[in-house]
Amino acid sequence: MKIGFIGLGSLGTPIALNLADSGHELYVYNRTASKVAPLAEKGAIVCESVAALARQCPVLFTIVSDDAALKGICEGEGGLLENLTPESIHVSLTTVLPETAKELADRHAQHGQHYLASPVFGRPEAAIARKLNYILAGPGFLKEKIEPLLKDSGGIKVWDFGEAITAANTVKLCGNFLIAAALEAIGESIALARSSGVDAGRMWELFNQTLFNTPVYHNYSNLIVQQKFEPAAFTMQLGLKDMNLVLQQAASVQQNMPLAALLKEHMQQLVSEGKQSMDWSAVSFAAR
Amino acid sequence: MKIGFIGLGSLGTPIALNLADSGHELYVYNRTASKVAPLAEKGAIVCESVAALARQCPVLFTIVSDDAALKGICEGEGGLLENLTPESIHVSLTTVLPETAKELADRHAQHGQHYLASPVFGRPEAAIARKLNYILAGPGFLKEKIEPLLKDSGGIKVWDFGEAITAANTVKLCGNFLIAAALEAIGESIALARSSGVDAGRMWELFNQTLFNTPVYHNYSNLIVQQKFEPAAFTMQLGLKDMNLVLQQAASVQQNMPLAALLKEHMQQLVSEGKQSMDWSAVSFAAR
Repeated sequence: MKIGFIGLGSLGTPIALNLADSGHELYVYNRTASKVAPLAEKGAIVCESVAALARQCPVLFTIVSDDAALKGICEGEGGLLENLTPESIHVSLTTVLPETAKELADRHAQHGQHYLASPVFGRPEAAIARKLNYILAGPGFLKEKIEPLLKDSGGIKVWDFGEAITAANTVKLCGNFLIAAALEAIGESIALARSSGVDAGRMWELFNQTLFNTPVYHNYSNLIVQQKFEPAAFTMQLGLKDMNLVLQQAASVQQNMPLAALLKEHMQQLVSEGKQSMDWSAVSFAAR
Repeated sequence: MKIGFIGLGSLGTPIALNLADSGHELYVYNRTASKVAPLAEKGAIVCESVAALARQCPVLFTIVSDDAALKGICEGEGGLLENLTPESIHVSLTTVLPETAKELADRHAQHGQHYLASPVFGRPEAAIARKLNYILAGPGFLKEKIEPLLKDSGGIKVWDFGEAITAANTVKLCGNFLIAAALEAIGESIALARSSGVDAGRMWELFNQTLFNTPVYHNYSNLIVQQKFEPAAFTMQLGLKDMNLVLQQAASVQQNMPLAALLKEHMQQLVSEGKQSMDWSAVSFAAR
């Protein structure tokens, strides 16, 4: 199938490579042109603009940095809304505010196009290993068409959250909030252990084999015990973006989330100290 | 071996029964006399006082509610310090402040007796299934003697944290803090999902099979999705006690723990509203 792909970042690249490896005809575009090289090597067609790509592809994947970037490629004369052909399907993998997904779905519909929300859980290594978990929301007939492509792109499972387009991004934000909460908790536990003269590595060996025997805790407790926050797999800046989205969503439904507020405050402090490029697992260091 | 056992609560009882089933000669005492019945049925000898029990047993396990209760059975004319024979070993399973363990170890030593700290991870079901994880700290020659008994009592594994007696309770407090942090995070995620019109049960099906595939998250997300907070497996009152211990330990080593402070505040609020007997998994309801 002819598939467009916009957003060849650290996660977008392995996802796009999986699609190419699965035999699809890929059309790629990236703001930073050098990033298209690995795809071009696999035979992907490099487009010179969003518009050029949009005109070719009945299905388009996007995975960009945030709400503004996603809206940026949708809007304007050279954007997706003006250039995608009728009935084409925009599969949006970016973590955005549920309200942004709703707004873009509506605007695509006004142009006779379709928008599916499919944010994704998994780091780049998981994409390479084809172990991504996709969350999918939108109209059933579109999901049926797109689900096999999500599997081709590295999805080990596609989790259907119904027709309401906002559900997928809400679940994604909840997941990122839960990971951030675990990071703060791991960090505070390690700080308490160390200050009390306890071997924090040994303590996490225990927790990782018992109470918290799951990759999120394994990976992050190792990073935090070693204080290995660079290079970042997911930056503090992105973490702060997500906590802002969580709190915006919470505010829009009048939900109090004091732990999310605490996490945001810590990330904000670290970013304001110039630590925006550190891995977000350094979050608990705001309290030191 | 002749083993004394004090503290036949919900966790103490299955631990003591395991010791009896493993062929040890048990001497039991409990403040609430009716609780000795299941042990008496297994042939345990019921003692009329702490002192009577202490005089018989070269090894003694205690598992009581808190620091004050533990000090209470150690001190005074009828207490362990006055009545345990020289060289006898007190294995203390209660979650207490590391400083309490240190103080009691010193006082036992002054009486020619030994004290080992061995707090335990596992709910009563885990004790019955012999899947407890013991954390052990103290002098090596004592640990060698006691480790087989901890296994007989239901330990699937005994985790050695060195000679410093304070280490074991520090690790235990870190573990309980981490669980409490997960409870708050799970609760806030469910609240956000529900307010946003997302099926929270379905969302946790996803998280439990992916990011958080571990019993702590499985069990507690089920309880919180169902809002099933009674009967409590671990009460809000006990949770508050533990968060107080975490913050006392943190203060004693000048460690800032803002997430622990938030958890304590929430538990305190719920206890002050009369919810002290609810399961501690209701912690996030303080923010509603």
